[in-house]
Amino acid sequence: MMRAVACAPSSRTFCRALRTASRNVHSLSAPASHRNLLSKIWAPGSPKLHNPTNAMDHLLKFGFLYQTASGVFHMLPMGLRVQQKLEALMDKYMSRLGACKVGLSSISSQTLWAKSGRLSLGGSELFKFQDRRGHRLLLSPTHEEEITSLLSNFSPKADRLPLRLYQISRKYRDEKRPRQRLLRAREFLMKDLYTFDSSKSLALATYAEVREIYARIFDELKLPYLVAEADSGNIGGSLSHEYHLPTPGGEGEDFVITCNKCGYTANEEVVARNDIPSGYASVEVDSPSQNVIDGAVDCWYGITKDKSTLVYVWFTSNLKPKREVNTHAIKDVFPDLDSSIEDPKAAFMAFNTQNRAEKSPKLLNIVDGTFPSHLLEKLESTFETFDWEDAIYEPVKPKVLSTISRHPVTQRPLNVLRIQDGDSCARCTDGKVKVQKAIEVGHTFHLGTRYSKPFSAMVTLPESSQADMKDFDLHAKQKGGRGTNVYLQMGCHGIGVSRIIGAVACILRNDEGLNWPRIIAPFELAVIPSNMDLIKGAERIYDILTSSQASGQAPIDAIISDQSSHLLGRKIKDVMAYGIPVFVIVGNRYTVEGICEVECPRLKVKEIVSVAELSGCVRSILDRL
Amino acid sequence: MMRAVACAPSSRTFCRALRTASRNVHSLSAPASHRNLLSKIWAPGSPKLHNPTNAMDHLLKFGFLYQTASGVFHMLPMGLRVQQKLEALMDKYMSRLGACKVGLSSISSQTLWAKSGRLSLGGSELFKFQDRRGHRLLLSPTHEEEITSLLSNFSPKADRLPLRLYQISRKYRDEKRPRQRLLRAREFLMKDLYTFDSSKSLALATYAEVREIYARIFDELKLPYLVAEADSGNIGGSLSHEYHLPTPGGEGEDFVITCNKCGYTANEEVVARNDIPSGYASVEVDSPSQNVIDGAVDCWYGITKDKSTLVYVWFTSNLKPKREVNTHAIKDVFPDLDSSIEDPKAAFMAFNTQNRAEKSPKLLNIVDGTFPSHLLEKLESTFETFDWEDAIYEPVKPKVLSTISRHPVTQRPLNVLRIQDGDSCARCTDGKVKVQKAIEVGHTFHLGTRYSKPFSAMVTLPESSQADMKDFDLHAKQKGGRGTNVYLQMGCHGIGVSRIIGAVACILRNDEGLNWPRIIAPFELAVIPSNMDLIKGAERIYDILTSSQASGQAPIDAIISDQSSHLLGRKIKDVMAYGIPVFVIVGNRYTVEGICEVECPRLKVKEIVSVAELSGCVRSILDRL
Repeated sequence: MMRAVACAPSSRTFCRALRTASRNVHSLSAPASHRNLLSKIWAPGSPKLHNPTNAMDHLLKFGFLYQTASGVFHMLPMGLRVQQKLEALMDKYMSRLGACKVGLSSISSQTLWAKSGRLSLGGSELFKFQDRRGHRLLLSPTHEEEITSLLSNFSPKADRLPLRLYQISRKYRDEKRPRQRLLRAREFLMKDLYTFDSSKSLALATYAEVREIYARIFDELKLPYLVAEADSGNIGGSLSHEYHLPTPGGEGEDFVITCNKCGYTANEEVVARNDIPSGYASVEVDSPSQNVIDGAVDCWYGITKDKSTLVYVWFTSNLKPKREVNTHAIKDVFPDLDSSIEDPKAAFMAFNTQNRAEKSPKLLNIVDGTFPSHLLEKLESTFETFDWEDAIYEPVKPKVLSTISRHPVTQRPLNVLRIQDGDSCARCTDGKVKVQKAIEVGHTFHLGTRYSKPFSAMVTLPESSQADMKDFDLHAKQKGGRGTNVYLQMGCHGIGVSRIIGAVACILRNDEGLNWPRIIAPFELAVIPSNMDLIKGAERIYDILTSSQASGQAPIDAIISDQSSHLLGRKIKDVMAYGIPVFVIVGNRYTVEGICEVECPRLKVKEIVSVAELSGCVRSILDRL
Repeated sequence: MMRAVACAPSSRTFCRALRTASRNVHSLSAPASHRNLLSKIWAPGSPKLHNPTNAMDHLLKFGFLYQTASGVFHMLPMGLRVQQKLEALMDKYMSRLGACKVGLSSISSQTLWAKSGRLSLGGSELFKFQDRRGHRLLLSPTHEEEITSLLSNFSPKADRLPLRLYQISRKYRDEKRPRQRLLRAREFLMKDLYTFDSSKSLALATYAEVREIYARIFDELKLPYLVAEADSGNIGGSLSHEYHLPTPGGEGEDFVITCNKCGYTANEEVVARNDIPSGYASVEVDSPSQNVIDGAVDCWYGITKDKSTLVYVWFTSNLKPKREVNTHAIKDVFPDLDSSIEDPKAAFMAFNTQNRAEKSPKLLNIVDGTFPSHLLEKLESTFETFDWEDAIYEPVKPKVLSTISRHPVTQRPLNVLRIQDGDSCARCTDGKVKVQKAIEVGHTFHLGTRYSKPFSAMVTLPESSQADMKDFDLHAKQKGGRGTNVYLQMGCHGIGVSRIIGAVACILRNDEGLNWPRIIAPFELAVIPSNMDLIKGAERIYDILTSSQASGQAPIDAIISDQSSHLLGRKIKDVMAYGIPVFVIVGNRYTVEGICEVECPRLKVKEIVSVAELSGCVRSILDRL
């Protein structure tokens, strides 16, 4: 056989002959079993991770994925199955929304990004490179520029709107600090949907439809989720919502606030921007000391992005429980703050000793509403005379800026501390809020004409259109007599596919391993023969459960635990580690009495079931997962 | 509704309420039709391409894809459907091979590529870049390095072999001359399979199995294909086959030679390397002139990569039909040749006038076997004395190297001309060959230990193993007493998914538009109501054909031509332009007599069929496409 392959003539005719021969005599290996077998899935574990303490390490330990570099991963077969289930879920609901699937190139041009103004905004998070001819390219973190440019080339007709296009593809972001594996990766999978309407009101109706569909998608995970008012960030636009999965274990980077009365739900970031007095719960301010440095006053330091200004944030230390500052709130009154520098004082001194001539060094006091007001004058005079902290700033002789103690717009006292459980609601003021650590897994934006204007993406309204023209963004240059040209009203709507995998792993994993909701489990169910003599029985059970004809229902996505060298206990352990939510043990009682054992650790189900009842029993369990 | 979205509280409870409400009152738009409708597919044509003269422009004209930069494409909805069908085809056959699907990162590290030695070999075709920390990265054109590195981390157990892993993902290659759209793109989709065995014989058995599966994949396209012996190139290894789709229109870059007697099939590249006398067909050499410059002798020029040497290739001009040189054959005897320079003489003069000191300029004569032997001495003396071509090389004073007129290994006269139809077979010498222009769409390589050695990817044989040790590549350092460590024997096997789309478009398109084989058609069938009064009838026909219950067979992937503004002729034209291979026209006779018209332009079928017979008729047509 081998010599034949190496040297034989290989025309099509010959190939056909060889093929026919091999089919008849089975000289080549028989096709792989049509049944899913656990022995055939390559799930290489990381032996170093004996007792992973977080969900991400679980994903590594059980061979779902492999990290090749900081924030860069290979999806291994088990992980890829989870990913593909999520992709199918997205496809299903995007299709319901009437969205067409596209595959936009990962390589984009810096010129295009300069046109939208995001080349500098995205800044160092963009992976930039040049091709052999010196063309400046980048790896797209998102595709607003590409799709709007595409739409400006192919102006849709008015009767083709609303137009909805989506893709599920790899995105790239050169994160400053990639961390928590899939939660903040540099190469990741995202579903991004772009919507196009002719008028503002229709675009907002589309936005509502997408929210509706998103809710259905997240419902399918059968996990609690939060829809929070959010910040639009660099993407642009005015209306934006985040979808969060709260993590009981505290993983994730976001704090989402919900009110028990009015239902207000928002990211901590926007609560601060709303600048509504928080009414801290149970504030007990002791009689403050006369000495601002030693007194019952806390201080937090920050530095500006250009490192020219050191920022002091002052607040009372007598709040119970203790508070941290909310850097989003500080940025709201002082946007130049860079909250990511670990030792701002050292950075300030180092930079300003070296760069004296460039920009004069400055000190700024920001004072929270809880800071004792009678100490304010004292604080300022102390700064003016530098008679504090052993005059450590003497070498750089910084100028002291005017203290910020009121919001520039509302003139209310500042509120720059983190909200905590039990604080009053920022919106209704009646309710008490709950703060949950959460992982953002989706984000919707109403973009308006943020991109369609720079890229001149338009639609021509029919002449007969009787609509209220205030509802449109007219293009300045109108063609003569052939309808009105208006800018497309856009929306963009992302779901982090890789992130959902990481977030769900965080939320549902336990000491035994991972634990997937049915809709994204790599397999819904495992059939475990208690020993290899029962493999035929296991195959029969598998065939019953995976047949759609017998039940008239969708087949169950099952797998057989057929590892011949493993004892029953080890097989159960493996199935639980992989997070396959339900398993059926085919033991000796199957042969004798026609019964098996059904287990679902998450629902604490352990039942003895006859073969006749098995399909119904298993399906009713799966419906709850 | 809009105000509610913009300002309403958005807790989960609220969302649920909103959702329930909308479901009941249909305040949000109803879910999109479950039927595929042509009016809902976004297929924006390129208006500039009125009369595309090649298949690639057809793909652009009919909105299958869009080119954003040289060799970089967006897949639009119609094109993506073709791509997804191909992906499903790959998945089906990879599963039969027992291969597990993975998703390796597109970002790889230059360090890894340096380890295999391919960082310099791949050279300027690699897209290289640095991240914010200065780590040197690249966009993978293929994944041998990553997968072998992965395997070296997770040495498979001997009983887990053969291990077969594949992916379908975007690959990157900074082509010098991206051209013919999808055929030579810089970002493209590839299916790559990697196989791992413990011994050489098992690896060759795997290779044979992959060939078998590949033949079945290409059979599904129902197009002629060629399996050619091929060159392993930079990838490495010793055994390699290419899969080609011949193009009657002459698209593509490869010439594939097949013998009518022995079935020998090979790329022109390797035929030359085999260095077997070709026995040119009907060679008629006239009495050659005494003057080598003016005589019946042809000359081709080339230059070396370092531009130091100008190469003359001499052959008789009296062959009928006329011959071109086979640059692969020239490279076989003189590997330094760079055949891509357009004007080698000018390049030689320019470079060597500027860089005299660097490397001394040289002239080389390579003489084909057809060159009249009595002129050889004359040729050489003419060169030595520079008394030809007005001594144009005088300024650079090149040294004349020894003439190459025999193969360095076989000492036979050289054969550096292109093979043509009717030449004798290079292998059996009895048969006559046929030369076909073709597009390479697949490539298989037996790699042996090309990558497993540098990356130390091994498997431990069980102690009981009684195999012939010559069949293994032993690792130098053996662990004591616990079985034998041997290097994994690898194979890699690619199929160009984007390329197949381009190649099939080339082969089957005609003046009416594209023309897809059933297996990759964006839709298998279109139902066309002859006017909008018949839309209900069209829906009924669609439902019959797409139902699996009625026929007990797989549902047909159909679409309704529902564009209300188009007349019947325009609808048929569109369907043919998109290359939907079969269509059913639902006209007035459907209402009156219950009959429709079935058309398949490719098979020249045009039949009147009753509704009862429709499903059977359509399926029998589809089975032939």
